[in-house]
Amino acid sequence: MMKIVAAIDSFKGSATSAELNQAVLSGFSDQWEKCSIPIADGGEGSMAAVFAAFGGNYETVPVTDPLGGKLQARMLVTKIKEEKIALIESAEVIGLQLVEPSDETSRNSSSFGLGQMVLAACRQGVKKIYLTLGGSGTSDGGVGFLLALGATIQRNERMENNPLLQAESLELSQLNPLLAQIDLFALADVTNPYSGEQGFASVFGSQKGATKETIQQLDQQAKRLAEHIKRTTGIDLEVPGSGAAGGLGGGVYLAGGQLVPGFSTIASLIGFEEKIKGADLLITGEGRIDGQTARGKVPYGVALLAQKRQLPIVAICGSRTERLGELSQLLPTVFSIQQGPVSLAEAMEKKRTLINAQQTAQAIAGLVEQWQKKTGSVPSEGTDFPTK
Amino acid sequence: MMKIVAAIDSFKGSATSAELNQAVLSGFSDQWEKCSIPIADGGEGSMAAVFAAFGGNYETVPVTDPLGGKLQARMLVTKIKEEKIALIESAEVIGLQLVEPSDETSRNSSSFGLGQMVLAACRQGVKKIYLTLGGSGTSDGGVGFLLALGATIQRNERMENNPLLQAESLELSQLNPLLAQIDLFALADVTNPYSGEQGFASVFGSQKGATKETIQQLDQQAKRLAEHIKRTTGIDLEVPGSGAAGGLGGGVYLAGGQLVPGFSTIASLIGFEEKIKGADLLITGEGRIDGQTARGKVPYGVALLAQKRQLPIVAICGSRTERLGELSQLLPTVFSIQQGPVSLAEAMEKKRTLINAQQTAQAIAGLVEQWQKKTGSVPSEGTDFPTK
Repeated sequence: MMKIVAAIDSFKGSATSAELNQAVLSGFSDQWEKCSIPIADGGEGSMAAVFAAFGGNYETVPVTDPLGGKLQARMLVTKIKEEKIALIESAEVIGLQLVEPSDETSRNSSSFGLGQMVLAACRQGVKKIYLTLGGSGTSDGGVGFLLALGATIQRNERMENNPLLQAESLELSQLNPLLAQIDLFALADVTNPYSGEQGFASVFGSQKGATKETIQQLDQQAKRLAEHIKRTTGIDLEVPGSGAAGGLGGGVYLAGGQLVPGFSTIASLIGFEEKIKGADLLITGEGRIDGQTARGKVPYGVALLAQKRQLPIVAICGSRTERLGELSQLLPTVFSIQQGPVSLAEAMEKKRTLINAQQTAQAIAGLVEQWQKKTGSVPSEGTDFPTK
Repeated sequence: MMKIVAAIDSFKGSATSAELNQAVLSGFSDQWEKCSIPIADGGEGSMAAVFAAFGGNYETVPVTDPLGGKLQARMLVTKIKEEKIALIESAEVIGLQLVEPSDETSRNSSSFGLGQMVLAACRQGVKKIYLTLGGSGTSDGGVGFLLALGATIQRNERMENNPLLQAESLELSQLNPLLAQIDLFALADVTNPYSGEQGFASVFGSQKGATKETIQQLDQQAKRLAEHIKRTTGIDLEVPGSGAAGGLGGGVYLAGGQLVPGFSTIASLIGFEEKIKGADLLITGEGRIDGQTARGKVPYGVALLAQKRQLPIVAICGSRTERLGELSQLLPTVFSIQQGPVSLAEAMEKKRTLINAQQTAQAIAGLVEQWQKKTGSVPSEGTDFPTK
């Protein structure tokens, strides 16, 4: 019996990882042993991936939303190998969907609530906190996050609520002692520094609605803060990744956390490599596969592991670009699931997406089964090559 | 070395069979031996398919167009195994594109020019004439065709030029003696009878623009003519296929020709089955794959031969329907070439179609190569199973 493993990232705005895996596996006949691994790369679906692997509790925590309102946000608390951990998706607390992107929201949003969330996790007695940084809507350099954790700032006279715009200095000596009892990991694949041309304001500011002037002010404040921190503590904030999620990477860094890569951290947490042992075929995918995919997205991460284990791999997507750059060597088989000309809106309907994914899977299964029949060979049990 | 054979029908309005084959083969690496077989099922591209196999001359013949104008139309004259043959695509002479479909054109168009074309082929000294019936724009019961070949009718007082509407009787005794020197084959996959509920007027009349009243008149005339023929000659016009191409099937039948299936006749002419010997993978396709495909279209015909020879087969298309009926057993692997949401107009641009076909082929090749590497098997030389 051949084994098919589906590990497809969510198609954002359309279908979840688990739904896509299920649709694809339903396209394979019962001749196949089927395995679904819900997966994410540190963006949307990260809690779902870990929950699928270990179960756990979704805890609802009252926090401050990015614009100062009230929000009930979820985190996942679970046990992995007897160790209690929490997984927090930043987007649940400070996501772009909570902040209508505009210059005004750029100048007023804060990551404060995420600090509250981390403290709530600490109070649950977890040992490790995994914080996914993807999809954030704030550009406060992580200052709000640090304020919630006990940092203090000297405020200037600006009335806007983005604490980065207000901060003349930052004082970290009063950070909540609960932080010392946990390991904090921030999942991000962005390597931007805190300030300057590659800093968070310059590179991501406009996505969040900031005008050129606001971007400049944010970047100046970020630079000033980094210099202040260096002068007062000796810590260099300008490290790769401190510019992730509007500077939240820097906030996590100052709170004693580490920046870790998204996909490989999730994959390691859920024992992904163990789970694909014995597979004859992997199917991965993402809503859009393009030149960005090789920057740590799910299909890239899965393809690297497939290569390591010499497993055939296919990626499916809603759409792909003609050129995939370095990805095309690693992932020679990429199919769009579209079954004909269709509008974006119609293509993104969940039902349509899942039917298309199933049909594409049927075609893939059909080809493999025909080839298998032709060559008459039975695949080697497990195809378990030694790992390097 | 593995061998890939491409035999894809033209994507009508977008790209020819040869162009699509070429695009698909370019998606396979040079590890593959590549073979292109331009193919058709008796529709557009039939001359091109035979020309690709045997060369020949495209002869231009001055004929009368369906509405009485002048037209220079092409036929292919070539030799197959020392025998001179002509291939005529009806659509070149009486195609729907030459007759703006409307009630008026339905009541005035004639297949006369096609009879002229057949006589021109006879005068070239060919032994066999293959006449593809697909894509016709006339609904004259083949009466115009027969008139050009020497038949006569007794006319009523209708002024319209559709000779079926004018014919009160049909006299076949004066058919051109050249016809006796050739074998005439009409390629069609339609099995409709001449008149009645399943006759050409009732079933295809509205596609050609006829109103309900015109359809009724055409059908009445067809019935009257069939009865007249039966009474005067003993020939029963109500045979399967006489309703093909607006009754042209019946005209060919009365001229002593035979109705033969489109794909298998073309395939047999060009030695298709010989050409796919030794293939490891076949790729076929059609612009649209749906429930109609199993009615003798190229992918169906190629799939039947693939099944007979136990060859893996993949079909590509511009679009497909979710359900493919009986086809899905025979052809489990159908990929749309679309690479994401796209409008019909954009999808049909030739350049876009060919790039998409190439990309789909790359993905298919990638999967087969990965699987081949995994199983480590070399395909059996030629995979030449005995044919039944």
